Amino acid sequence: MMPFPVIPARLEALRLRYASDDSGALADYIPELAKADPSWFGMSLCTIDGHVYDCGDSDQEFTIQSVSKPFVYALALADNGPTAMLERVGVEPSGKAFNSILLDGTNRPHNPMVNAGAIATVAMVRGVDGRFDRILETLGAFAGRTLSMDDSVYESERETGHQNRAIAHLMRTAGVFDLDVEEVLDVYFRQCSVLVTSRDLAVMAATLANGGRNPVTGRTALPSEAVGDVLSVMFTSGMYDYSGEWAFETGMPAKSGVSGGIAGLIPGQAGLGVFSPLVDDRGNSVRGTQVCQDFSKDLGFHLFRNRTDSLPPIKSVSIGSARHSYRVRSIAETQLLKHHGNRITAFELQGPWTFIAVERLMRRVGELDSGFVILETSRIGSVDEVAGALMNEFADSIAANGGTLILSGTVPTRLTGLSTVTFPTIDEALEWSEERVLSNLSPEGRPGSTVTVADSDLGRGLDADAAEALARAGRMMRIAEGSAVVHEGTAARSMYLVTSGHLTASIGDRRVASFGPGAIFGEMSFLTGARRTATVVADAACRLVEFNDIGALSPEIRERVHRNIAVVIAQRLTVANRTMTDG
Amino acid sequence: MMPFPVIPARLEALRLRYASDDSGALADYIPELAKADPSWFGMSLCTIDGHVYDCGDSDQEFTIQSVSKPFVYALALADNGPTAMLERVGVEPSGKAFNSILLDGTNRPHNPMVNAGAIATVAMVRGVDGRFDRILETLGAFAGRTLSMDDSVYESERETGHQNRAIAHLMRTAGVFDLDVEEVLDVYFRQCSVLVTSRDLAVMAATLANGGRNPVTGRTALPSEAVGDVLSVMFTSGMYDYSGEWAFETGMPAKSGVSGGIAGLIPGQAGLGVFSPLVDDRGNSVRGTQVCQDFSKDLGFHLFRNRTDSLPPIKSVSIGSARHSYRVRSIAETQLLKHHGNRITAFELQGPWTFIAVERLMRRVGELDSGFVILETSRIGSVDEVAGALMNEFADSIAANGGTLILSGTVPTRLTGLSTVTFPTIDEALEWSEERVLSNLSPEGRPGSTVTVADSDLGRGLDADAAEALARAGRMMRIAEGSAVVHEGTAARSMYLVTSGHLTASIGDRRVASFGPGAIFGEMSFLTGARRTATVVADAACRLVEFNDIGALSPEIRERVHRNIAVVIAQRLTVANRTMTDG
Repeated sequence: MMPFPVIPARLEALRLRYASDDSGALADYIPELAKADPSWFGMSLCTIDGHVYDCGDSDQEFTIQSVSKPFVYALALADNGPTAMLERVGVEPSGKAFNSILLDGTNRPHNPMVNAGAIATVAMVRGVDGRFDRILETLGAFAGRTLSMDDSVYESERETGHQNRAIAHLMRTAGVFDLDVEEVLDVYFRQCSVLVTSRDLAVMAATLANGGRNPVTGRTALPSEAVGDVLSVMFTSGMYDYSGEWAFETGMPAKSGVSGGIAGLIPGQAGLGVFSPLVDDRGNSVRGTQVCQDFSKDLGFHLFRNRTDSLPPIKSVSIGSARHSYRVRSIAETQLLKHHGNRITAFELQGPWTFIAVERLMRRVGELDSGFVILETSRIGSVDEVAGALMNEFADSIAANGGTLILSGTVPTRLTGLSTVTFPTIDEALEWSEERVLSNLSPEGRPGSTVTVADSDLGRGLDADAAEALARAGRMMRIAEGSAVVHEGTAARSMYLVTSGHLTASIGDRRVASFGPGAIFGEMSFLTGARRTATVVADAACRLVEFNDIGALSPEIRERVHRNIAVVIAQRLTVANRTMTDG
Repeated sequence: MMPFPVIPARLEALRLRYASDDSGALADYIPELAKADPSWFGMSLCTIDGHVYDCGDSDQEFTIQSVSKPFVYALALADNGPTAMLERVGVEPSGKAFNSILLDGTNRPHNPMVNAGAIATVAMVRGVDGRFDRILETLGAFAGRTLSMDDSVYESERETGHQNRAIAHLMRTAGVFDLDVEEVLDVYFRQCSVLVTSRDLAVMAATLANGGRNPVTGRTALPSEAVGDVLSVMFTSGMYDYSGEWAFETGMPAKSGVSGGIAGLIPGQAGLGVFSPLVDDRGNSVRGTQVCQDFSKDLGFHLFRNRTDSLPPIKSVSIGSARHSYRVRSIAETQLLKHHGNRITAFELQGPWTFIAVERLMRRVGELDSGFVILETSRIGSVDEVAGALMNEFADSIAANGGTLILSGTVPTRLTGLSTVTFPTIDEALEWSEERVLSNLSPEGRPGSTVTVADSDLGRGLDADAAEALARAGRMMRIAEGSAVVHEGTAARSMYLVTSGHLTASIGDRRVASFGPGAIFGEMSFLTGARRTATVVADAACRLVEFNDIGALSPEIRERVHRNIAVVIAQRLTVANRTMTDG
């Protein structure tokens, strides 16, 4: 079809909602930061499978500042392991401002998300001279591109960072590290001055959401063992003394920085990057905080609210050219569906139905060229409000493009309005779509609504006299809607050719096949005298020809008939095998 | 088979590891609590599908104390919504002891997990006189049974709760609530005195892990919207001023109480309840804390370390009586497998392979009666250390019971040692198991290693002369191991009967069928002149009979042969359809 505009529109609406909010102020404790344009506002979303949505000033570079902390902490964890890290840097929320000089009861900085802890973390990164290079490389591995530094911000931080100098000297005196204070601070100031965009932050966060593997580049930025530790600390301490309320309200492990960046994520789903330089008095971006809160509230991004599933929202995708319905088809129809069945795609959906699930579905549908989109919804566990709304926009979008959305199975209440066509099973939805596709084709090769013995697959290869003889060997029958023709378990020897109408075969209450004009059924009992394996009921008034004993016909005709039966069944077997191996 | 003892043995080992640790002390600030037996030690695990493992003193009742706080907070949230609750009770970690009298900057208690917040929460529960009854009923809905109160502990708390009285009066004065202080405290003391067991705590926690629905009773204890809020607060504040480190080290939303209980959980996986009355100076059970830490470290229970999947670890279960391999079988063999195939079960596994995944698999295998257990492991994302160890114990357990474990697909490194039998595809594993099942049966009805035209399904119903004529119409062939007999895409008109050996059919590199003595292949080209749809290669030296043109035979023989072909194919179609609908 085409990419659906639904998700980009949502993101843009969210951005516009806060673009005119001018509250907060530019951070000025580093003079260079006060030169930012207060109107800058970018946001990006990176899914766990590496698709990035950008919005607003998503390519505006800014210095990463404190958003670097969890990523450098990740590097230090990978270098030292959690036990050695815990000896030097705590993991307890401090209840204090980001630049507090206070250490905890054991003379450690409270956690690596406040300045004291971040400076101590720098001292733990391995490599004497190469410390900053390793940090820059790590940040780049998370972002999926080579990053550079803003020299003037670095100079500005280095010249004015008295509070951080005080903190660093205090820690040096307390024995938190024993390196040269200015060297450690220099690396820290450089780290804070690395330039990123909201898109970078989204990819960096998505890398954490993806267990340490960058979903865009496929490269591992962090051993997966360390990811859990980083997320724990982000969740409890990432937003300074606002962390508890943040955890409660947005439910995202996240990190903010005074230059106005926020990186947040939901494990197994996506990473979010927001940039807007106006910050509140805790040092968190005002618009960024609002966007994250709305992401959580309106779009259902919450660690504990939606289970952080890696359960893929799409259980299976079947293209109609490879997977056919159980409708028993003539050889000609089977060929037509093989060529034109790609106009139909059936999706089996599963799991909690959330923003990110709809995002994935729309993206997949957009990549295909199917006018008939079947959604089997029985395995959807729940549908949250935003998913319901997005699915409605998606349905409208399909209709506007001349497509048809078809539902099958148990349909959750929030999705019942999506389509006017709903079937109890995916197979019936497939069959209905196939009929629509076939009827849109030129009539050539299609059996009409009425088929005779002579032009059926059963009479194939017989001359007119032989076909006539075969037809006379059969018995014409009319079947009323709802009547059963054969019954599962009964002894029988007859076979039926459908000349008009439609019937369904079931084993118990399981629908296993359906038959239209030209189809034969009951051939196994006819061939071997075996009991009926299914019950066949007319869905509409039907005409059939029943064949019971063709012993009176010539051996040549009988040979041909048996061969034709073999061919018809072999053809069905081919379709069945294709469905099994592809389905 | 039988229930595997692997998980109970692990839990018992964990309990024994700490049973002799006598550090900590009985809480004595409520005199009645000091009467507990310090040796009591119970633990229980309740899975998301409602299976409970108990261990040690899991039926010893004790007063719930502070473990009640998240559940009563849940009730208050359901009564008032998060916004109204936030106005009265904060959600920020306090950094203070559980019984601190300090309020936060806006005169609210810091969070509902400390005493001040819990008392304020009681005042928010609706119902003037029925407040305690509603609390008792809610706790019972979480536990899945009717709970009662310990009167003497209640009396003791009421008489000695001066600190809580001070806190409550301070909050009354600050306007946190405007109810009668003694009435609110009375409900609070009753709430703390409700009797539970470690099993109750596990079920209560599992109810939160299951989105608010009790997995044992199936009853909804809490609207799912409120679950996320409760878990956020438990995670950031559930373990008092040890919460950050707890979140980092155990990664479980959890709540402890001074009587020695801890309830912890992993969303979408399981709830854990531990009880041991010796507590440390923060008021957390010493052995309980150790058990939870080991659960996290050794058993991989960590919110951020294992993604908290609801992805079921078992993607599909196929019983060999319903799902057959692609091996083309004689009618007799097909019947035998229909009756004896239940000795084979094939599991398709998926997702990260963790403690809870192995637990589920072992439970399922234990319920079945299959000596041949096939595990298709290609979709396993990762195997953590404990899962690897448990799988080895599981494999030993199967072998000790005379069963056979078979692996198929891509096998993760940690699982390669489980079995000496590994196949590239689940189908080959199925076929191998079928051969073993068939060869263990009486030889009656089984084709031998060599089949003649006369006793094959193709010659069925022909008298000796006719069978002889048919055999003469064919051409005997010897095929060397590795040679292709037919090639996908080539024009051809011949059909083959396998008289000895084994061959495999592939479309591209996809294996689609295999053939042993008695099987026919190539019949579609024989019947219709269609091009070969697959390539067939001899897996071992074979003998075949090739039929090209049987026009020289009498029409009666030809009719019978075509009918036999139809029967053979119809039989395959039946098997294919069964695989499709059951598989």
